[in-house]
Amino acid sequence: MTSPIRIAIAGHGNLGRGVEAAVARSPDMQLVGIYTRRPPAQLQPLTAGVPVHGMDALAGHTGQIDVLILCGGSKQDLPEQGPQLAALFNTVDSFDTHARIPEYFAAVDAPARANHKTALISAGWDPGMFSINRVIGEALLPEGATYTFWGKGLSQGHSDAIRRVPGVAGGVQYTVPVPAAVEQVRSGTRPQLTTRQKHTRECFVVLADGADADTVRRAIVTMPHYFDEYDTTVTFISADELRRDHGAMPHGGFVIRSGSTSAGTTQVIEYGLKLDSNPEFTSAVLVAYARAVHRLHGQGQYGAKTVFDVAPGLLSPHSAEQLRAEQL
Amino acid sequence: MTSPIRIAIAGHGNLGRGVEAAVARSPDMQLVGIYTRRPPAQLQPLTAGVPVHGMDALAGHTGQIDVLILCGGSKQDLPEQGPQLAALFNTVDSFDTHARIPEYFAAVDAPARANHKTALISAGWDPGMFSINRVIGEALLPEGATYTFWGKGLSQGHSDAIRRVPGVAGGVQYTVPVPAAVEQVRSGTRPQLTTRQKHTRECFVVLADGADADTVRRAIVTMPHYFDEYDTTVTFISADELRRDHGAMPHGGFVIRSGSTSAGTTQVIEYGLKLDSNPEFTSAVLVAYARAVHRLHGQGQYGAKTVFDVAPGLLSPHSAEQLRAEQL
Repeated sequence: MTSPIRIAIAGHGNLGRGVEAAVARSPDMQLVGIYTRRPPAQLQPLTAGVPVHGMDALAGHTGQIDVLILCGGSKQDLPEQGPQLAALFNTVDSFDTHARIPEYFAAVDAPARANHKTALISAGWDPGMFSINRVIGEALLPEGATYTFWGKGLSQGHSDAIRRVPGVAGGVQYTVPVPAAVEQVRSGTRPQLTTRQKHTRECFVVLADGADADTVRRAIVTMPHYFDEYDTTVTFISADELRRDHGAMPHGGFVIRSGSTSAGTTQVIEYGLKLDSNPEFTSAVLVAYARAVHRLHGQGQYGAKTVFDVAPGLLSPHSAEQLRAEQL
Repeated sequence: MTSPIRIAIAGHGNLGRGVEAAVARSPDMQLVGIYTRRPPAQLQPLTAGVPVHGMDALAGHTGQIDVLILCGGSKQDLPEQGPQLAALFNTVDSFDTHARIPEYFAAVDAPARANHKTALISAGWDPGMFSINRVIGEALLPEGATYTFWGKGLSQGHSDAIRRVPGVAGGVQYTVPVPAAVEQVRSGTRPQLTTRQKHTRECFVVLADGADADTVRRAIVTMPHYFDEYDTTVTFISADELRRDHGAMPHGGFVIRSGSTSAGTTQVIEYGLKLDSNPEFTSAVLVAYARAVHRLHGQGQYGAKTVFDVAPGLLSPHSAEQLRAEQL
């Protein structure tokens, strides 16, 4: 038995708590610390006995952590923390601002290389597992089309957008794939689908005192970028119903690659997720990639990496021999 | 533009023809030769101008081929050809006798290492894409269960078994997943399923002149290993119907990983294939892995490899930069 991989967590929101849960299910790992910007005494770790420190203690703990999992957000936290911490630790993060990934990759790659660290960015399910399936699907079926559907699931960004509308006291938004579109794609016909044809948006909204329902509904469904290109329904509910029925964070979706290997021969590949908890699944992915990062670092593979650079076997706690004998 | 990867094919059955079709859809590759045990003049390549040689010409062509794709069968051809040819070429094969994979891996690994070649064994969809999804599913959700369903699809081995029954003039067998079992697994309940509960077997049989239908039916459904543990239906059809309705080789199936990331939080991952042509899809996988083998060899990674050792990005014709910018 080799010694366990020493994992630490930077940031203890939904994602950080999910990482705690996932590390607890990984016998080859040990959680050695949680680092937070809050006063450490206020934080309640799920794991008995794990020390909690302020974020500023990290620089003094470089010898005690094999992989640091960055659980901050992509907007504010990671653009700053990612490059800084990749100079000191092997890291994994879930940076998910798709358009800014090349820039973020470069910002993390330089300090990681310079300091012989391995930094895996943008792990999770999209970006992450969905990205892998887009790339493999296209590699296997070069003549074809790729479709990504999200949901049914709670979208954090769209829920935030609803809550900024005047007259809204609370609310959530679910992204829902259009069943007819999914079935059409699954059938192998390769339809051209507009944004409106692929997903609908369902909003559950608590009105502020005295707000006018029709005005709020109109403000939501016409909101540029977020809702105007979709068929959006708005259902008004009470604050109690919001708490009772909409507190979970389910999500999921499908990546479907539909292609031809010869004239008239259709092949359809589908990868799907049905998640009770979006953050817990993202955390589970981060933890599996932490195992891979530890191994890549051991092989001297320094710098920024993405899920495209990681062989599947590196994610598993089992040896290559065992995987060949039992899982191939 | 770098020069194309020079691909050659050893064996020109269904799989070899599928490789031809897949290479034709890969602009970064060039088919430089087909090697066959038949008299070369009898073989009709799909690709205009590609030279056809006898298998014995291979040893003289080591400088002209970047990756040789072995399209022989796992019973007779590969156990002999795999180790021999891995001493001379980078190879890819679809060795699929699950129980003998460790032994075959060792037999290919030694000559490949000794001669600085890279040999990827057991590519395809099972073993292959399904194996990858079993390993990743378990790595992401260590607390859970994995289910593999095959079909609906034509099983070559079971069709062969039917045709050996006295009184059978022809026939095919389809493996069919039990819809209720699939739905139960998809729901996240993690049932324990017996062999009989997971799949049914549907046989379409042409009776020989004078054969007794009931006797033939009984001989099929009670056949040990092949049918006795399944609910098997036998439908008698004419030779014309067999030709007309059962000439294609569709297949597919699902790998489902169902697990918990915390108490009561269920996460379900499903990978599914719906294939019009089983051999053409297997060939498409072989060709994508030939690209990866060419790159691994360029990196000095010699010896036998499996799909567990290959990072997703290596399968794609696109650069790592492009994949990060467009597919992550």
